[in-house]
Amino acid sequence: MALNVTQKLIQDHLVAGQMTPGEEIGLKIDQTLTQDATGTMVMLELEAMGLDHAKTEASAQYVDHNVIQVDNKNPDDHLFLQSASRRFGIHYSRPGNGVSHPVHMQRLAQPGKTLLGADSHTCANGCMGMLAMGAGGIDVAMAIAGEPFYVKMPKVWGIEVTGDLPDWVSAKDIILELLRRHDVKGGVGRVIEYYGPGLNSLSAMDRHVIANMGAELGATGTVFPSDNEIKRFLKEQEREDDWIELKADKGATYDLHEELNLSELEPLIAKPSSPGNVVPVKDIAGTPIYQSYVGSSANPGYRDFAVAAEIVKNKQIANGISFDINPTSRQVLTDLVKEGHIGSLLQAGARLHQAGCNGCIGMGQAPATGRNSLRTTPRNFPGRSGTKEDSVFLCSPETAAASALTGEITDPRTLEIDYPNIQDPKKPTIDINLLEKPLSLEEAREIELYKGPNIASIPEMDQLPDQLEVPILLKMGDNISTDEILAGGARVLPFRSNLPEISKFAFEIIDESYYDRGMKSRDQSGHAIVAGFNYGQGSSREHAALAPRHLGLRVALVKDFARIHWQNLVNFGILPITFVQEKDYDSLEQGDVLLLSDLRKTIQQAKEFTVEVKGKNKRIPVQLALSGRQIDMMLKGGLINWVKDRQKNQV
Amino acid sequence: MALNVTQKLIQDHLVAGQMTPGEEIGLKIDQTLTQDATGTMVMLELEAMGLDHAKTEASAQYVDHNVIQVDNKNPDDHLFLQSASRRFGIHYSRPGNGVSHPVHMQRLAQPGKTLLGADSHTCANGCMGMLAMGAGGIDVAMAIAGEPFYVKMPKVWGIEVTGDLPDWVSAKDIILELLRRHDVKGGVGRVIEYYGPGLNSLSAMDRHVIANMGAELGATGTVFPSDNEIKRFLKEQEREDDWIELKADKGATYDLHEELNLSELEPLIAKPSSPGNVVPVKDIAGTPIYQSYVGSSANPGYRDFAVAAEIVKNKQIANGISFDINPTSRQVLTDLVKEGHIGSLLQAGARLHQAGCNGCIGMGQAPATGRNSLRTTPRNFPGRSGTKEDSVFLCSPETAAASALTGEITDPRTLEIDYPNIQDPKKPTIDINLLEKPLSLEEAREIELYKGPNIASIPEMDQLPDQLEVPILLKMGDNISTDEILAGGARVLPFRSNLPEISKFAFEIIDESYYDRGMKSRDQSGHAIVAGFNYGQGSSREHAALAPRHLGLRVALVKDFARIHWQNLVNFGILPITFVQEKDYDSLEQGDVLLLSDLRKTIQQAKEFTVEVKGKNKRIPVQLALSGRQIDMMLKGGLINWVKDRQKNQV
Repeated sequence: MALNVTQKLIQDHLVAGQMTPGEEIGLKIDQTLTQDATGTMVMLELEAMGLDHAKTEASAQYVDHNVIQVDNKNPDDHLFLQSASRRFGIHYSRPGNGVSHPVHMQRLAQPGKTLLGADSHTCANGCMGMLAMGAGGIDVAMAIAGEPFYVKMPKVWGIEVTGDLPDWVSAKDIILELLRRHDVKGGVGRVIEYYGPGLNSLSAMDRHVIANMGAELGATGTVFPSDNEIKRFLKEQEREDDWIELKADKGATYDLHEELNLSELEPLIAKPSSPGNVVPVKDIAGTPIYQSYVGSSANPGYRDFAVAAEIVKNKQIANGISFDINPTSRQVLTDLVKEGHIGSLLQAGARLHQAGCNGCIGMGQAPATGRNSLRTTPRNFPGRSGTKEDSVFLCSPETAAASALTGEITDPRTLEIDYPNIQDPKKPTIDINLLEKPLSLEEAREIELYKGPNIASIPEMDQLPDQLEVPILLKMGDNISTDEILAGGARVLPFRSNLPEISKFAFEIIDESYYDRGMKSRDQSGHAIVAGFNYGQGSSREHAALAPRHLGLRVALVKDFARIHWQNLVNFGILPITFVQEKDYDSLEQGDVLLLSDLRKTIQQAKEFTVEVKGKNKRIPVQLALSGRQIDMMLKGGLINWVKDRQKNQV
Repeated sequence: MALNVTQKLIQDHLVAGQMTPGEEIGLKIDQTLTQDATGTMVMLELEAMGLDHAKTEASAQYVDHNVIQVDNKNPDDHLFLQSASRRFGIHYSRPGNGVSHPVHMQRLAQPGKTLLGADSHTCANGCMGMLAMGAGGIDVAMAIAGEPFYVKMPKVWGIEVTGDLPDWVSAKDIILELLRRHDVKGGVGRVIEYYGPGLNSLSAMDRHVIANMGAELGATGTVFPSDNEIKRFLKEQEREDDWIELKADKGATYDLHEELNLSELEPLIAKPSSPGNVVPVKDIAGTPIYQSYVGSSANPGYRDFAVAAEIVKNKQIANGISFDINPTSRQVLTDLVKEGHIGSLLQAGARLHQAGCNGCIGMGQAPATGRNSLRTTPRNFPGRSGTKEDSVFLCSPETAAASALTGEITDPRTLEIDYPNIQDPKKPTIDINLLEKPLSLEEAREIELYKGPNIASIPEMDQLPDQLEVPILLKMGDNISTDEILAGGARVLPFRSNLPEISKFAFEIIDESYYDRGMKSRDQSGHAIVAGFNYGQGSSREHAALAPRHLGLRVALVKDFARIHWQNLVNFGILPITFVQEKDYDSLEQGDVLLLSDLRKTIQQAKEFTVEVKGKNKRIPVQLALSGRQIDMMLKGGLINWVKDRQKNQV
């Protein structure tokens, strides 16, 4: 049978289940990545599981999210991560080396492999002909320990790319076009696979841009073929041996099909406060801006910065504009310095920041209250910038640089200069010191974990009770993101290894009284939340499940879930149920009490059951779409308890 | 009469008093500088005073201390500062342009002028043949409004410099040698004036390094002559017209005299946690380090970074070391990029940060708990790094770079390479856009102040009561710094424009219960604190007086005061008294209640009076060294009330 690239990757790694869309499948994971915001918890989980040495082909721990270090917590975490990487046989990338996704692409990514990452933009490495997926930290911990990753078999969404990009239009505009067409849940349950003659004009790093923001479409993954461009890229990285060709078979088909003609595209921009809120730049040209920001994993390549540099070269940015340059990897920054582009940016008035995620995750560069910020980052959910009343637009580096010059949103085609044609440096920098290599098993066993005062164990969690009587503490609308459930940013991230502390920020953006009410509910039988469609979109951070669970969340009843957050809820023993009839959503109010009786037997016997609304003489039919493995996990109170049991039984 | 340079500068600007050491003199101020941590308050004060347009020759507002922007507060402050600079006719330097002192030196400093800055390292510009002094924000506000600056006539401490620096020894080692000899209060009440043939080998920027850390000696100022090197520097900056020659007259004398032979110096290092704790590097060589840090106003020059770059070029820093590069101005960074030095640093594994104060003021780059951090910064007071249990060493860029390579404290003379001989670039970058020029009076009057949600007015303060019955809430030892009274750093600095909020951090490092006890005392008749020698050393931040005052501090009884903090106490109506007999310090305990009766008449009539210790049948003789002007201010409850009265009387 003729297979597409996604099917080949899945078939090669299938260890459980059938390749029928919607069915749970188990996949062997070849590589993992973790970053500092998710990694400390993963390392604590590995320790709890008693892991000796990583069982993957390559696992890497990056420090990129929080590299500011305003007190001891952050650097103490770095030392913990480094010691844990050494202990468990994991590559370690220290702060300042850059964002996980481009660094992984440069140093470790390999066509034909699977990559599971505790970061929602892990899908970026799908540009390399990999099946690269974001997951919760504990899923990644399991993968490092050699366990398969379980996911619903996705539909494969083939996008045939034709034509050539016009001048002033670049990769970011391609993914913004898809977001314009399909919005933030258009990719749910799907892997997006690009193919066709249009790919010939897209470099590996261009494809990274497109694959990265597959996360914003809600996709399980994004897959590109491994063609000669990937060969060229790997050769440039002095890793030609890692290349294999990987293309769809002749006659391969897709579950869904779409066409994308690059020649028809124009500069696009996502307005506040959703990546799906896309319009042509020209439609809102002239809007005054406060900030223009180039960088992040959504525009990490040499050309993304170089094109901005060429646009502002020998000019000055508009008065009062903050023009923030966030290099994404040490390698790229070094080349930009050598080739004179950083010089051009500085002389135009740019602020040059440390390589890392920085403002993309709210670690610095927050905009002023209510002022418009243009960013090449992947997300503009409310408050993600660090400023509560923010107004963030997402665009290409071309649009960001053009707007920095004028001080207002500017279609770069209206600049009176030729489009800069950027070529990669003839001899790009290869920094083999970016990753500290794993120790051998013998060396690793000598290493002791370094635990600074900011590392707190995960509190024990009880198993699923047979009866739940839980008040609805929050009723929310559609598209609630994990940034709203548990913000990132400078106030919150430093407590990522300290669950009692970080829980104080849960749902803070939505309702500041949630923490106190949650703590009260915890002393009784816990609580529920209710929400609309696409609940838990955005970042993969598992604290968005862990923290509410710590505050007594037992039931999340919504119209539907975003994939990674759904998995995190299951992993931490929160019952993720959906309405059978959407209209029942309207009949529930905050304060209503849900009754779930005979629960342990019920969930083992039925995918559909009813929930009583106490005192309202009403029963609501709900669905629980768990596999047998997941039901077992849910009964035990989550994955940690499940693994503990498993370890016991293995002894 | 033959005059030294200091005397010439004072004589040229004397508007009140006699040039007798210890007597209060009034000086005309030609230039001012403010930074963002002190500037918001200064601008609020200018607004309260109803200022129309700055009356100085040049005033400049820099944004350098807090350029991280983790939420709206910081960028809102920047917009406020920019609008206020425009409104009041002040130069504005936006975030990313660099640290005030080197930028001021490059763009505005002029031999023969006086400069008053709301930053304790303002003395750095004494390298330019200026009388440059740090002061509290309100003193600078007064200077901007055209009022003289009042200070005790200092003794002039002549240091005759001879010889030449050996290889591997640089300007930082010179000032560390003086700190080794005289410790952190060796310069109190003095202006340090350097002269002699040894100056010929010291560049303007080398002199900046030396003048900068005059603050750590407690000096009122540091003065260098304006010679051909200053002419060369100004010519390089395309400001040759700003040069005048300024040298000591033949036969000029000094109140104190000292000799310094550069040829005899060796690499020095200040151990935790005081800049005066200096030993030769070789004495502690081999101590493992966690961090090596190059930058800050104490080593801001092109050569300071270039020499580090040459030392690590084509090598790798030791595994696990955080090698932090903090450029100090956009001009210098641009040149370092152009000349390849940033490339060398990056390839060796350095982390390149935004131009600004950054970790020097605890805004990022905090070290891990208890780990050794080597820094070229001026200060290592406990907690200033952002980490409570820190261990910070101060050294030259040579020592920092050598130690980054080895991973332990290393005397750079032991490296097996030739000493890099650094020359300034042939055609250095001149960035005239560093400063946004002041508006004309007509344009300025059109500007409205932008006040973000983080700007709170200064609460009203009452006048001095005739009787005070105040418990001693804290009894402290010697050398308490303003970092301990009110920390800088990322948690605290963002509230610099919000007194009720920032007060929560007062004395937190010394006693966490102070805030609650202070708030209680405020509802009664306030409280006192007791301390030893050199109380209030370090940073000039006036919040260290304002916040305790807000919490009810009325009396500070100590062995002696650091100059700037003493002035801040007076400005905010806190009675700064000293023991006549040091042994009385020993007889006081926390919790004792001090009684000061008939106070308003007493302080007008006597410099010396007694304080009763309630219930202990004991009277302690104390001194109050205020001028008539200051007593008037004290009676009215501080300078704000005093100026308000003055404005009323002028109407």
